[in-house]
Amino acid sequence: MKQDLDRLMAERDIDAFVVEGPDGLESANPDYAYFVGARHLPGLVLKRRGAPAMLLHGVMERQAAAETGLVLIPRDRWDMRAIRAALPDPLAAQVEYRRQMFTELGIVGRVACYGSVKAGPHLALWQALAARMPELTVVAELEGSILDVARATKDDDEIAAMRRVGRKTAEVVASVVACIRAGRERDGVVVDATGEPITIGRIRGLIGRELAARQLEAGHTIFAQGSDAGLPHALGRDAEALRPGTAIVFDIFPREVGGYYHDMTRTFAIGHAPPMLQRAYDEVMGAYGLVIGELEVGAPTRVYQELVCRYFEERGHATVATTYPLEEGYVHSLGHGLGLEVHEDPRMSTLNDRGEVLAPGTVVTIEPGLYYPSRGFGVRIEDTWYVTADGQFENLTSFPKDLVIPLEG
Amino acid sequence: MKQDLDRLMAERDIDAFVVEGPDGLESANPDYAYFVGARHLPGLVLKRRGAPAMLLHGVMERQAAAETGLVLIPRDRWDMRAIRAALPDPLAAQVEYRRQMFTELGIVGRVACYGSVKAGPHLALWQALAARMPELTVVAELEGSILDVARATKDDDEIAAMRRVGRKTAEVVASVVACIRAGRERDGVVVDATGEPITIGRIRGLIGRELAARQLEAGHTIFAQGSDAGLPHALGRDAEALRPGTAIVFDIFPREVGGYYHDMTRTFAIGHAPPMLQRAYDEVMGAYGLVIGELEVGAPTRVYQELVCRYFEERGHATVATTYPLEEGYVHSLGHGLGLEVHEDPRMSTLNDRGEVLAPGTVVTIEPGLYYPSRGFGVRIEDTWYVTADGQFENLTSFPKDLVIPLEG
Repeated sequence: MKQDLDRLMAERDIDAFVVEGPDGLESANPDYAYFVGARHLPGLVLKRRGAPAMLLHGVMERQAAAETGLVLIPRDRWDMRAIRAALPDPLAAQVEYRRQMFTELGIVGRVACYGSVKAGPHLALWQALAARMPELTVVAELEGSILDVARATKDDDEIAAMRRVGRKTAEVVASVVACIRAGRERDGVVVDATGEPITIGRIRGLIGRELAARQLEAGHTIFAQGSDAGLPHALGRDAEALRPGTAIVFDIFPREVGGYYHDMTRTFAIGHAPPMLQRAYDEVMGAYGLVIGELEVGAPTRVYQELVCRYFEERGHATVATTYPLEEGYVHSLGHGLGLEVHEDPRMSTLNDRGEVLAPGTVVTIEPGLYYPSRGFGVRIEDTWYVTADGQFENLTSFPKDLVIPLEG
Repeated sequence: MKQDLDRLMAERDIDAFVVEGPDGLESANPDYAYFVGARHLPGLVLKRRGAPAMLLHGVMERQAAAETGLVLIPRDRWDMRAIRAALPDPLAAQVEYRRQMFTELGIVGRVACYGSVKAGPHLALWQALAARMPELTVVAELEGSILDVARATKDDDEIAAMRRVGRKTAEVVASVVACIRAGRERDGVVVDATGEPITIGRIRGLIGRELAARQLEAGHTIFAQGSDAGLPHALGRDAEALRPGTAIVFDIFPREVGGYYHDMTRTFAIGHAPPMLQRAYDEVMGAYGLVIGELEVGAPTRVYQELVCRYFEERGHATVATTYPLEEGYVHSLGHGLGLEVHEDPRMSTLNDRGEVLAPGTVVTIEPGLYYPSRGFGVRIEDTWYVTADGQFENLTSFPKDLVIPLEG
C-alpha cells in the first residue's frame, strides 16, 4: 500500500524515486497512475524518503494537476529555453534541466526510477544523468521494486474501485449469456429470433457496447470456440457462428479507463455439453474448489500451483510441473496479481516464484484450466479474489459457473 | 516508412535493433505495434540490418504470432528453466537468456533498443547485458531515432487506416453536433426535447457510444466550455450543462484499438456567438487559412509556427515566440505529427525544432488557437493533414468549421 513506501524505501536504502509520466503512455503507465490517477497529465512524480510525493507538471495541465492532491511543482520553474540556448545538444540540455531540478528538489543519493517509458530515450537520459551527477546513484530493479511491492497490497479506496469494476464486469458477462440464451439452434449454429446466425463478431460488438455503457475498456477480450478455446490466448474468430455443444472460453479483463482491472473467465457450452468436455470441466472445477478450500493468509503462492499440478497429474493430464513448455493439458500458471495492471505481483507460479505470499490486501486471480486443441476444446475458470485486511478471502467475481447455456429462443 | 529502415540503419551505423513488447504495455507501445499490429502478443522484435524482422513469441500466442508475417522465433528455443536452475539470481538469468538469444540470432555490434518498457527493469537489464556482452554496444537515442524517422512518413497501408479513422472521427463529431442542434434554450442552458438539460457528461456518454460503435477508442476527449475552453488541456466538467453563447472547445483524438490516431478540434458556440468570441474565432481561422495556403513539400515545419506567431502578434495577441510559458494568447505550438502515437515526429514548433521538414508521407496536425481563460473563452481549430507521396496536401479531417450551432429543437 502507498503508506508502506517510506518503510520500503528505508529497508532498501533508497533516498528518492522518480516516476516518469511521458505524454502518450499514460494509459499504460501503472506506476504513474498509482500517484496521479486516470488523468491525462504528462509530468513527473518525485518523492524523497519521508516527504510527500511531488508532481512536476506543465502550465496547460494545472487544473488536472491540482486535482491529484500531490505537491505541485511547475515544470517551468527551470528555464528550458535558457538551457537550450546554452546547450544546443538536446541530450545535454535535458540532462542539465534534470540536474537543476533534482538538485533543487533533493532528488540525490540512491534514486530509483519507475514508470513506463520509451526504451531508448530513457536509457540515454539516465546514463548521461548518472555520468553528470556523481551525487546520484541510479537504482534499477529488475523485479519486485518498492512500487511493485506497495502496489501488490490494496488499500480500501483501491478495493472499492476493484469491487465496482468486478460488479460491472459481471453485468457485461450476464448480458452476453442473456443474448445467447435467447437464441435457438438451426443447421448446427445458434441463430437469433430473426434466424440470423449469432457470430463471435456480433458477441464482441455486444461486449464493446456493454463495456462502453459502464465506462469500461478492455483491450483483448477472449471469446474462443472449439480448438481456439484450447489455445489459452487465442482471441476467437469474429466470422464464426456460435455452435451448440462446443467449448467456448470467455475471458474478459476490463478496467475503468486508466484505472483498476477485473479479470474473469467462464467456459460455456451452448445447449448441451459433450461428455469429454463435461469431464474436463468437472476436473477444472475440482481444481478450482480445491484451491479455494485451501486458501490461507500468508501462505506462499507457489503451493497452490503445486497443488493444482498434482491434482491434474493424478487425473492423467500433463502439466507444466513436469513438462515446459507444454501445449496440451494444464499449460500455464494458476493466476496472477492484478490491480492497475492485469498482470502484476504476486505471481501464482512455480517457474517464476520469488517467495511471494498471500498477504492481506493482495488481489489475485485463481484460474485453472485444461487445454486440448487437438480434441477441439479447452476449459478455463477464473475469478478474482481479495485477501481482506483481517485475513478473510472475498471473491470479487460474482457470477455463476454453469457450463451449459440452455437455448430458450 | 518501414522500407527505409535498412538505409537508416546503415546511415547511423546500427547493426541491429530490438523492440521490447512486454505484456501489458501493448496498447501504448507504438514502436512494437509498428511491427506486430494491434495484437495482444507479448514478445520481442529483433532485426539485423539487411535481414527481415523476427518476432520472439510464446507458445500460447502462436496463432497471433503467425498473423504478423514476421519471421517467428519461439521464446522457448532457449531454456529459461535450465538457465534459472544454473543462475538463481533473476537478473543474471535474464541476462544469460538474452545473451544466448542475441548471440544465436546475430544481435551484436551496435544495437539500438526501442519500445515502451518499465523504466527500472529495462535499465537494469540493458546495463547488465552491456557489461556481460562486450561484443554488444547499446545505442540509446534521446530523440529522432531511426524508428521515429521511419514512422514519421506513412506508407499507403498506413494512410488507408488513417483516412478510415478520420472518416469515423468526423461521424462521431457529427453525431454530437446533431444532438446539440436538436436542443433548445431554457433558463440559460440547452435542454433536450423532454426539457432535460444537456450536460457535458451526457455529451461524453454519447461520444463514448459513438466511438465504441466504430471500434474506436479515445483516452481523454476535451469538451471544455467557457473559461475551461481557455485552458488548452482542460477536459471539461461533466456536471455542467451546455450554455448558449459560450465557447466550447471539442478536441477529439481517437484511434482504432491499438492502431492509428486521428486528431481534430472544433470550437462551437451554441445559438449565437458573442462578438469577442467571433473575432477571436475569425482570427484563428485566418491563421489556419494562412498556414494551409503556404503549405509546401519539403518546407521546414518551424516556419509555419513563426508565421502564425507573427500573424497573431500583429493582431495584438501575446505568443510563445516572445513569452514562454504563456497563459493567455497563442500559448502552444502549431501542431505535431501523428500516427501510432497522437504526438510523434515531426513537431510544428520553434522551441523544440530539430530541422524537421514536411516530407512526402508526413501526417501532421495544424491547430492554431487563442486562449483567454480570464475572459471566459478559448478557440482552437485543428485538422489532420497528409503530405502525399507526389507532393500534394490532403486534409484527412472532413468536417465543416462553423462556429455557431443553431438550436432547432
